[in-house]
Amino acid sequence: MKVWQIPAFGIDHLQLVERAALTPGPGQVAVRVHAVSLNYRDLLITLGLYNPKLALPRIPCSDGAGEVTAVGEGVTRFKVGDRVAGIFMQHWIDGPADAAKQRGALGGDIDGMLAESVLLDQNGLVPIPDHLSWEEASTLPCAAVTAWNAVVHAGRVKPGDTVVIQGTGGVSIFALQFAKLLGARVLGTSGSDEKLARAKALGLDAGVNYRQHEDWAKWVLEETGGSGADLVVEVGGAGTFAQSLKAVRVGGHIAQIGILSQSAEPIQIAPMLHKQVHLQGIYVGSRADFEEMNRAITLHRLQPIVDKTFSFDQAPAAFALMQSAAHFGKIVIRN
Amino acid sequence: MKVWQIPAFGIDHLQLVERAALTPGPGQVAVRVHAVSLNYRDLLITLGLYNPKLALPRIPCSDGAGEVTAVGEGVTRFKVGDRVAGIFMQHWIDGPADAAKQRGALGGDIDGMLAESVLLDQNGLVPIPDHLSWEEASTLPCAAVTAWNAVVHAGRVKPGDTVVIQGTGGVSIFALQFAKLLGARVLGTSGSDEKLARAKALGLDAGVNYRQHEDWAKWVLEETGGSGADLVVEVGGAGTFAQSLKAVRVGGHIAQIGILSQSAEPIQIAPMLHKQVHLQGIYVGSRADFEEMNRAITLHRLQPIVDKTFSFDQAPAAFALMQSAAHFGKIVIRN
Amino acid sequence: MKVWQIPAFGIDHLQLVERAALTPGPGQVAVRVHAVSLNYRDLLITLGLYNPKLALPRIPCSDGAGEVTAVGEGVTRFKVGDRVAGIFMQHWIDGPADAAKQRGALGGDIDGMLAESVLLDQNGLVPIPDHLSWEEASTLPCAAVTAWNAVVHAGRVKPGDTVVIQGTGGVSIFALQFAKLLGARVLGTSGSDEKLARAKALGLDAGVNYRQHEDWAKWVLEETGGSGADLVVEVGGAGTFAQSLKAVRVGGHIAQIGILSQSAEPIQIAPMLHKQVHLQGIYVGSRADFEEMNRAITLHRLQPIVDKTFSFDQAPAAFALMQSAAHFGKIVIRN
Amino acid sequence: MKVWQIPAFGIDHLQLVERAALTPGPGQVAVRVHAVSLNYRDLLITLGLYNPKLALPRIPCSDGAGEVTAVGEGVTRFKVGDRVAGIFMQHWIDGPADAAKQRGALGGDIDGMLAESVLLDQNGLVPIPDHLSWEEASTLPCAAVTAWNAVVHAGRVKPGDTVVIQGTGGVSIFALQFAKLLGARVLGTSGSDEKLARAKALGLDAGVNYRQHEDWAKWVLEETGGSGADLVVEVGGAGTFAQSLKAVRVGGHIAQIGILSQSAEPIQIAPMLHKQVHLQGIYVGSRADFEEMNRAITLHRLQPIVDKTFSFDQAPAAFALMQSAAHFGKIVIRN
Repeated sequence: MKVWQIPAFGIDHLQLVERAALTPGPGQVAVRVHAVSLNYRDLLITLGLYNPKLALPRIPCSDGAGEVTAVGEGVTRFKVGDRVAGIFMQHWIDGPADAAKQRGALGGDIDGMLAESVLLDQNGLVPIPDHLSWEEASTLPCAAVTAWNAVVHAGRVKPGDTVVIQGTGGVSIFALQFAKLLGARVLGTSGSDEKLARAKALGLDAGVNYRQHEDWAKWVLEETGGSGADLVVEVGGAGTFAQSLKAVRVGGHIAQIGILSQSAEPIQIAPMLHKQVHLQGIYVGSRADFEEMNRAITLHRLQPIVDKTFSFDQAPAAFALMQSAAHFGKIVIRN
Repeated sequence: MKVWQIPAFGIDHLQLVERAALTPGPGQVAVRVHAVSLNYRDLLITLGLYNPKLALPRIPCSDGAGEVTAVGEGVTRFKVGDRVAGIFMQHWIDGPADAAKQRGALGGDIDGMLAESVLLDQNGLVPIPDHLSWEEASTLPCAAVTAWNAVVHAGRVKPGDTVVIQGTGGVSIFALQFAKLLGARVLGTSGSDEKLARAKALGLDAGVNYRQHEDWAKWVLEETGGSGADLVVEVGGAGTFAQSLKAVRVGGHIAQIGILSQSAEPIQIAPMLHKQVHLQGIYVGSRADFEEMNRAITLHRLQPIVDKTFSFDQAPAAFALMQSAAHFGKIVIRN
Repeated sequence: MKVWQIPAFGIDHLQLVERAALTPGPGQVAVRVHAVSLNYRDLLITLGLYNPKLALPRIPCSDGAGEVTAVGEGVTRFKVGDRVAGIFMQHWIDGPADAAKQRGALGGDIDGMLAESVLLDQNGLVPIPDHLSWEEASTLPCAAVTAWNAVVHAGRVKPGDTVVIQGTGGVSIFALQFAKLLGARVLGTSGSDEKLARAKALGLDAGVNYRQHEDWAKWVLEETGGSGADLVVEVGGAGTFAQSLKAVRVGGHIAQIGILSQSAEPIQIAPMLHKQVHLQGIYVGSRADFEEMNRAITLHRLQPIVDKTFSFDQAPAAFALMQSAAHFGKIVIRN
Repeated sequence: MKVWQIPAFGIDHLQLVERAALTPGPGQVAVRVHAVSLNYRDLLITLGLYNPKLALPRIPCSDGAGEVTAVGEGVTRFKVGDRVAGIFMQHWIDGPADAAKQRGALGGDIDGMLAESVLLDQNGLVPIPDHLSWEEASTLPCAAVTAWNAVVHAGRVKPGDTVVIQGTGGVSIFALQFAKLLGARVLGTSGSDEKLARAKALGLDAGVNYRQHEDWAKWVLEETGGSGADLVVEVGGAGTFAQSLKAVRVGGHIAQIGILSQSAEPIQIAPMLHKQVHLQGIYVGSRADFEEMNRAITLHRLQPIVDKTFSFDQAPAAFALMQSAAHFGKIVIRN
């Protein structure tokens, strides 16, 4: 079977190779992967910026969806033909995170989904909603679960709340969609008026172009009668954190996704204290979170936003698009 | 009556003046202040470092305890002779904070407690525990309520948890005392072995001298079998935040008190995310928090730790001791 | 001015009398009441079934909306002309309930809103959403706030959850509306197919006629794939509690409104335990809850459902309709 | 190996038989059971009152501790010689309960611990604290975990809170011990002054004999200045629920253990509503709860209270003592 692997860091080094077919052992499930979606983390890993000590070669990508083609002894959760997606951290089934549960992240600690087929433990998979295509379902494991936890659990968003999203990447667009399901008002930032217009078509209540309004937090304060947002979904990038702190209300929440910022950012401690901010780092979520989210996606027949789809052979071009940050929503590789 | 006021920033400018006696209006209570305790905020305010635009002159100090000497029309909560303390933010009675409730902080937005007598709204006072002296009771409004909220509400500490305190200032020592009431294990840092020994006498389970172990987070990890602390009560100071992030466990809590840090600190965003840290800024608390804490203090006959007491005339010397950071627990001015 | 009062228990005894006009004292606000809505509690009070020892005469009704016509000294929250509603418990401003906050319920402990004008403390009023008529706004204080707390706070409903409402009274219809704002699936019971049809027009996903399906919990289990509902909003009535316990999922929530049941009901303890149910009694809510709900109502331009409006003179007929239980949503008296 | 089994309901039918020795399969662990403790549920099961349709014969008892004697293929959590206890529900590892996790309770759905040796999945065991004897460790799985969840999670007890325990059975005594670790004041009821005296030696702050004070809730109100208890750990029995409702404060918690009550109890709904009680059914807890509790037990070297120990041969006498309700704390069978 064919897989993409990282023999050395750099998009240019991504390598399409042939590996031996896999037979599921006890408790394992073989999945024919039909679509893989990209996250910024996948780009950073490929570039060597996420974990410079990563053991190579590594198959990249955490997020993928496909069909069960074989099951090992003792498998009870799935049967051949089931439509499934892998969970981001293979050992985080339920309950709050701990260090042990965080081990085994796909496309990082262990090989990922950018392959014709993968073998995973039956506990590391979830069924995907019936109404989603392979491409759409492939977007869920990292970006959607992260957004779900940011909005539903960390932010405890309720009707009438104001939520701020930053940019129009995968997590931000899912956060927009989930916040609307919860009856919130959603404000967004972008460097592109055209992207803001697309976000409005998805429910964004108001948007600001941060190229024209660098101090976008001031705009958030104006839009909220001076009080600030209930939740800011902070995806990082240079200088956004200070703006997020300014934009959030007293006692409000910041969900720190932040993967965009790799370097240290100078942060004013005083406003965090005086505003009594609840800041929570969100690192995807558990299988239970994924299943809970899928119930909501199914009930509302929610459509993940796939920006562009590449063929399996064109995987490096997908990474290049991610690097250009020109996308809106998710980038998918069809397989 | 005599009051200390800040006519211009600087400890040297603190001025003892005579002001007219006060008569309580409707809903107001006159309190003969018997003791005032200092917080680092009081020092920063006096130095002009907290709010350089503060309208002067201002009577400093948020924390004081005394006796009701007169009540205005319609006062139902108190009678002459009652032993009381002011609440830090005069309008934060109950429920979560908001911007309106945060207005009216004693010794900042409005005149404070460093006076022979003060007039406060009856809603801005609480009864103090019977077993406490005036000096002890004066330490509660800011430092103790802050520590209570950090440990009980932000940290949700339970028996068997590990809590880290930093240094031996007022908030840290109260955090130690409350964490022990909750059945936690408490680890502490200090620049002085002698202070660590005193903290151990109060229940500290283990301590480290950060002058000898600059990377004290490593010691916390060792003490917790590699997993890290459940709660770090972060009081700030150069470089402590990075250590706190390293010392906290995956999914753990950092209660950000942080008043010691006025400047921006470069903070690595990535660990906040990967450790899924809950960071909460704590800015004192409500009257309801104060009353809830007083029930615990009363039940356990808990003794606040007063390091040194100054006479009313010596108030500037008390501020100077606060500035030297040589104290352990609270500094009190008797009146 | 004219007021309706209860000189002796019984709808027939309701008495329209003239009382002296009122002048607001310090902190008070005079409100010209334009509409009053009925709750089942108002009926029980009038019949003497709620509190047989109630001091009479008493002006009934907790819920009303009107216009500020005069303000007393020191009033800062309102000015003449403002559109307002009273809060159910005049002293429950914020934070969790306690016995003191629960005193002073309108139309019970103190005179209520069924009057041309009322005098209330400025703290006992909230502004009403601009888009609502007087009739609509009058429905909010008890029924809507109760439903808000049941669904948003007790039930912590999130997208994809299943919520069960019982009947089509005021609280149940608001619970339906709020649960839909939160992205839930809502199942409902009624003794009338026609009412179920009306509820479906408001968003009810599926309904069952309990006259045909006495064991409606079985239907809920079928509708939820055997697992049960996440939240049951239990409004009481003979035998509903046992059905609610059967209908709720393991670990689910029951919000106990229950005012319909005055007598003791034999309850099986064992299922409460084995299902690890969270049962919470909801007794309206605080002013802060009311304001939070109003933000949601305003954002979504949500329309309270007024079933029938009576003139002020016809007030007893409104009580009679409430007693007949033939209504759908709220019964309002225009003034 | 020898096991006790229930071939037909009734203590008299308990039967000591020989079964074949067991060899651990993949993922399984063989445990030589050294001590088993009894819960009221074990008695009810044996009497046929818990589940009259239980498939017989069944080995009774959920709680036991012992030593690992052999491990199957792929076992990573334990090695031969480890000291362990089984978890009550073999599939409830982490997170909130659901129906699937509740299946597989020891001594009920599946065979229990009253055997010389048992085979369990490695995920269904936890290490026991070093300082505990086999007898002491055997008391933890059901009674202690239940009490932990009642006090720590359902009750969210904090220093200064008042907790009420009922009687001096296993759960109640653990609840006393955990509530004291959390800094609470604990009030208790009993039908025996001598048992109250023993409970006071363990930290009970005040006790009442319900034979002399049938209306013990009145005493709780007096002891709490009229406001009521923050948490009542309701273990059931005729008429206790009404007293618990009366004894709890407005907004307080009732943790419903309640296994003592098998029949329906007539419950007044109105106080549940007006007091805005949080009632939570507690059905033991997860493995994560067990491990969390063990950290607390280890830190405080807490000693479970073993009332009487029987030899393995005398198991029926242990059941008879449980039935007599003459015990204080736990009844243990040594093996």
